[in-house]
Amino acid sequence: MLSLEMIWEAKQALEGVARVTPLTPTKNLGKNVYIKAENLQLTGAFKVRGAYNKIRSLSAEERERGVIACSAGNHAQGIALSATKLGIKSYICMPAGAPLSKVEATRNYGAEVILVPGVYDDAAREAERLTAEKGYTFAHPFNDEYVIAGQGTVGVEILEQLPEVEQVVVPIGGGGLISGIAYAIKMLKPKCKVIGVQAAGAPSMVDSRKAGEPVTLPGVSTIADGIAVKRPGDLTYELCSRYVDELITVEEDEICAAITTLIEDQKTVAEGAGATTVAAVMFGKVDASEKKTVCVVSGGNVDVTTLSRIITKGLVKLGRIAKITTRLVDKPGNLTGMLSIVSQTGANITSIDHEREDKKSEVGICVVELILETRNAEHVAEIRARLQENGYELID
Amino acid sequence: MLSLEMIWEAKQALEGVARVTPLTPTKNLGKNVYIKAENLQLTGAFKVRGAYNKIRSLSAEERERGVIACSAGNHAQGIALSATKLGIKSYICMPAGAPLSKVEATRNYGAEVILVPGVYDDAAREAERLTAEKGYTFAHPFNDEYVIAGQGTVGVEILEQLPEVEQVVVPIGGGGLISGIAYAIKMLKPKCKVIGVQAAGAPSMVDSRKAGEPVTLPGVSTIADGIAVKRPGDLTYELCSRYVDELITVEEDEICAAITTLIEDQKTVAEGAGATTVAAVMFGKVDASEKKTVCVVSGGNVDVTTLSRIITKGLVKLGRIAKITTRLVDKPGNLTGMLSIVSQTGANITSIDHEREDKKSEVGICVVELILETRNAEHVAEIRARLQENGYELID
Repeated sequence: MLSLEMIWEAKQALEGVARVTPLTPTKNLGKNVYIKAENLQLTGAFKVRGAYNKIRSLSAEERERGVIACSAGNHAQGIALSATKLGIKSYICMPAGAPLSKVEATRNYGAEVILVPGVYDDAAREAERLTAEKGYTFAHPFNDEYVIAGQGTVGVEILEQLPEVEQVVVPIGGGGLISGIAYAIKMLKPKCKVIGVQAAGAPSMVDSRKAGEPVTLPGVSTIADGIAVKRPGDLTYELCSRYVDELITVEEDEICAAITTLIEDQKTVAEGAGATTVAAVMFGKVDASEKKTVCVVSGGNVDVTTLSRIITKGLVKLGRIAKITTRLVDKPGNLTGMLSIVSQTGANITSIDHEREDKKSEVGICVVELILETRNAEHVAEIRARLQENGYELID
Repeated sequence: MLSLEMIWEAKQALEGVARVTPLTPTKNLGKNVYIKAENLQLTGAFKVRGAYNKIRSLSAEERERGVIACSAGNHAQGIALSATKLGIKSYICMPAGAPLSKVEATRNYGAEVILVPGVYDDAAREAERLTAEKGYTFAHPFNDEYVIAGQGTVGVEILEQLPEVEQVVVPIGGGGLISGIAYAIKMLKPKCKVIGVQAAGAPSMVDSRKAGEPVTLPGVSTIADGIAVKRPGDLTYELCSRYVDELITVEEDEICAAITTLIEDQKTVAEGAGATTVAAVMFGKVDASEKKTVCVVSGGNVDVTTLSRIITKGLVKLGRIAKITTRLVDKPGNLTGMLSIVSQTGANITSIDHEREDKKSEVGICVVELILETRNAEHVAEIRARLQENGYELID
């Protein structure tokens, strides 16, 4: 049974192993909004807390045999680093197509990586098989009391760093992080609200709460790969039901906007899962106007090669880039007139695509697509309105 | 005359105004390497230190009239914020094509932005004209003792945060930051080395030192726009000559690799100028193997829309993305053979461009371009060598 004592012991054990990550005020997100920066944790995510606490709890015999996990993400690195620090051998099963950077990072933390042909489920089966065959201890990513107790140390740290905190916002994948944090907070400061955030494309805990029991999603789809989990654990479902006040979801473009804002305003890098809590505040899903609010940014391991697409999507959502498509009668002056309206609003035109021979367009009609640099969503709305007032037909 | 007293007074004045930014150890850059994170300073760059110290030194009459500056970058925001904090009116001249985000940020800090048609030099002339006409105080970005004293507070903070520091690496544009830091360090701990870094595409201080006097570069070209300065100040040239031990330059792709590494490993966002010091350590221009080394990351205001290009360039430099172009006799099995060699090395093939009808290629010969995900530069070299051993001709 999870207890405050277990979390307290985890906290002692993690001293000198995991970092006490900074809790920093934000300027642009609101005067009451703070970030708990677990993206600055060792391995770039909170996972090392629970992983270390789990592995240190093993018996001498279990340690001798080693631990195994299945993950191409933060759990893999958390297990690898923790096992190495404790002088234990670790094995990580990953689907063969996992990004080289993840494979390398996990190896560099000292694990033996086993690349399994197929997808995640194939890797999971192989890990199960090896567990049975070799007697390794299987390290579950979330549905484990020692893991949950380790993640709960984040909750205690928040209370130490900001005793006046009134609400804490936490991402939910399998539910390990929020279970630990919510338990710690409700034991130590029950009046403090705990709010869980899921990606709308992977709402396993939200759906489970609605159903009154853990349910399995048919599929998940989100850039927040760290929380793309089909089914919560029994343990984490139970703990969330008791200790988490509210569950909400955020959309993909909101997550992208949050990542972009964290880069621009806070100069810090969050992965999709980590940015969900900031997205929740930015887009009014969590009201932080009155209450001192801590957003747990759970990790920062975003694939840098996809960062550009994320930023572009984020800038569109923030109204900093706008695409406006119109249908124009193709006669002299018509395009110039349109461009001058746009310029008068103070937008910068970054690209013009003027297409006469579009298959869909009638003769004498051309389609013009503008990409604009704009100030914010209101500015975009103003430009669209001004164009329409002047008789321009907006397609998109 | 610059004095330690001036820097000390600046430090007192900046309390509660500028942040004491973190000095953090890095793991992947080397055990002796620390980052002084001025990218986490208010406005996202160190400039606010000097700007505030300058403006607070003005007489009541000068304050009444207001200050003016010419900049579309960090200096603009530093002046705007500082003036507003001191209840003084500020005017910032910018070339009309300045990015909207910079204009907005500067306005949000309370300045009146004057958009001047033309380029930077036109904006500078307009600022000069307004200074003469309206009696504003012109705030120079670097060649000013109060500004230099303000930037010098970074040096004192480094000595307070890491008393055992042995060398400090600082970016140089006009030379204000390094002049202040070097002066403070040489007064308080003369044995500590101070090394200045410039972009190879804007080596104004390097060339001036060679010439024995300040020289003006015909032009500058670098993604590190914060240090793209054609000529050092007389004051900063003099101070650098006396107190800076060594000057080095870094290349564009090295800067990109440093930005990418800071995002991936440190989860922090640096602008080009700020990343030059990290590039210097990463690429062996500064030897940090023995000495406790602080890299001053001077700012983090990188244009997010260009970040993707920077990251791609950075990944190529780091050997994490490779492009390999070969000429193949176009017969069955030849392409497959090549791809299997590549696969055996453990690289992931992310794109294949197989072009038969290239104008330059002879009949029966085709050009194949591969984009690979690779581990590092050694891995890329290995792949190229294996292909050549097997008779494949590499074009690029």
